[in-house]
Amino acid sequence: MPEGAIFFKSKMKEKIATAKLERQVINSMREYFEKEGFVEIFPPKIVRASGACENIDTLFEVWVDGKRNWFHSEKPHPAYLSQTAQLYLEAFTPYLKKVFAVGPSFRAEPGNDNRHLIEFTMFEIEFAGGFKKLLEYIEGAIYKVVKDILALPQKIKRKLELKKEDIERLRRVKPVFPKITYEKAIQILNLPFGSDISSKDEQKLIEKFGGQPLFITHYPNPLYDHGKEIEVEKFFNMIPDPKNPKYVLSADLILPTGGEAVGAAQRVYKFEELKWRLENSRMFKRLIKKGGSLDDFAWYLERGKEKSVPHSGCGFGIARILKFIKGEEEIKKVVTFPSNQENII
Amino acid sequence: MPEGAIFFKSKMKEKIATAKLERQVINSMREYFEKEGFVEIFPPKIVRASGACENIDTLFEVWVDGKRNWFHSEKPHPAYLSQTAQLYLEAFTPYLKKVFAVGPSFRAEPGNDNRHLIEFTMFEIEFAGGFKKLLEYIEGAIYKVVKDILALPQKIKRKLELKKEDIERLRRVKPVFPKITYEKAIQILNLPFGSDISSKDEQKLIEKFGGQPLFITHYPNPLYDHGKEIEVEKFFNMIPDPKNPKYVLSADLILPTGGEAVGAAQRVYKFEELKWRLENSRMFKRLIKKGGSLDDFAWYLERGKEKSVPHSGCGFGIARILKFIKGEEEIKKVVTFPSNQENII
Repeated sequence: MPEGAIFFKSKMKEKIATAKLERQVINSMREYFEKEGFVEIFPPKIVRASGACENIDTLFEVWVDGKRNWFHSEKPHPAYLSQTAQLYLEAFTPYLKKVFAVGPSFRAEPGNDNRHLIEFTMFEIEFAGGFKKLLEYIEGAIYKVVKDILALPQKIKRKLELKKEDIERLRRVKPVFPKITYEKAIQILNLPFGSDISSKDEQKLIEKFGGQPLFITHYPNPLYDHGKEIEVEKFFNMIPDPKNPKYVLSADLILPTGGEAVGAAQRVYKFEELKWRLENSRMFKRLIKKGGSLDDFAWYLERGKEKSVPHSGCGFGIARILKFIKGEEEIKKVVTFPSNQENII
Repeated sequence: MPEGAIFFKSKMKEKIATAKLERQVINSMREYFEKEGFVEIFPPKIVRASGACENIDTLFEVWVDGKRNWFHSEKPHPAYLSQTAQLYLEAFTPYLKKVFAVGPSFRAEPGNDNRHLIEFTMFEIEFAGGFKKLLEYIEGAIYKVVKDILALPQKIKRKLELKKEDIERLRRVKPVFPKITYEKAIQILNLPFGSDISSKDEQKLIEKFGGQPLFITHYPNPLYDHGKEIEVEKFFNMIPDPKNPKYVLSADLILPTGGEAVGAAQRVYKFEELKWRLENSRMFKRLIKKGGSLDDFAWYLERGKEKSVPHSGCGFGIARILKFIKGEEEIKKVVTFPSNQENII
């Protein structure tokens, strides 16, 4: 029997606690954003490449009866599983102002390790507004998740299998998180400009900043001439910092044990700039190699032509938040149905 | 540009109303079942054949870089997109008693018509309990959806683009719905035993029963020797009616205009009976032809061996409920992101 099946069968008491904690966290977030006036939207999961994040190489393909190009509009084309609902949510910001979606994000990550799943629940928001407000929403949501757990009766905490040290870790969380720029982060870590910050290095930074959730902000602008290829890779529509276009108005929230739990940015919203950034992105070059084209983004670009407003958004990886809450290194232990290449049921 | 893109672009005001109504209905249902003590669960979407409903031929396949058998446990195997979370929810009924899940159901239905989508939001419940309670939950949930809409301020109703005749249609809905058996239904329609009831015939029955939502109950037992092949196809684990094993304790809820919006049944829960019914089902024979095996269901059968209780459940197709509310024949008009073979974005 597959490992997943054994896992499922053998530890039902643990599974129940996991399921309840997963629901507890998502309900807190839902409450937070509904109170803030966000409207839930139900974006598609079978998509063209407009459902890809920068990591386009990990797209799952959707086939029918052994046929890749089952889908067709003017001509047959492939379909993928959505990695992010971002662009679909963005389409609504000029009209509904604040929207969110909760659902699976799919990544064809190979292997069977303690950090990756092939699908995980993402809580994504998008709103008409700027970078400062975005960071406030992230702090507000994570802080509410923490407060709601701390406010649970002792009996419930036990049922959720929250240990004494978990509660202590959560008590230490403050409502405003430390923030450092990418530039500062690589300086502290003694890394060359353009480096990706490893998950091990992320945890080093957290230790340095008091064991709190930590924002790393202002990553290198992927469409700026840095004089060399840079390793760290960010989404094409992150907006350049008006004060210094070498960087974009983006932030990752790093959690103790959980690692990168939120990816956030203010977005480019003007049609010409969007189109130029897309066409010149690394992601787009990879898409062309895969047989894709600008057609994949036609609806999104068209929408931007019609009406758009300055807006920002982010995606919360629920499993990473759960890892933080439980102080758990093994991602398979914090998700009710953990799936990877070797474990699907 | 694909039709879907044009559709998306051209009618943004209508889209906003659609998005808001979709959210209104799902929130009502969520409130109803949470108040009844149901716990939300997040089942996987990339699955083995245990994520299939009886219509296994419309499974989407999940491939990676042109490889069908990217997934492997002891040996490489294919993966599919979930059509139902039923079996995953069932696994929790002995422990959590009442569970639900909200998410996409995927069907590789060809073409571009007014009744089918390739993905649609399903609200699925499963609980430790019997058939009578199941029908009460369905009536309770649909009635709450209707009442909540009727209670909205006039201004909001207009924003949701609800017409006067929509409101009148909803006002006529009573808290208890008429119920007829499958046997009675085919007798009224003058159809031979074993026939599938077409969507046109469903609407005829509704007219006959006062234009109300209508239950058709007690469909033919798919594992009973009816002396001939029968056309109407039901899921293998529906439990035979103890009073007459020719039929199963199942029900479909048919809505005016919406058609079959809920499929419901009490489930077989004893391991030996489950295994026998699965292995002798038409679905399983088709699965074997597709290259599948009993391995696909190993985790589910193992779980049943360990601990199980009498339980029942159903899936609400949100788009069909929305068709009913709006009296709308075209399914693409009631869903925010309608996807079919010719329209994905």
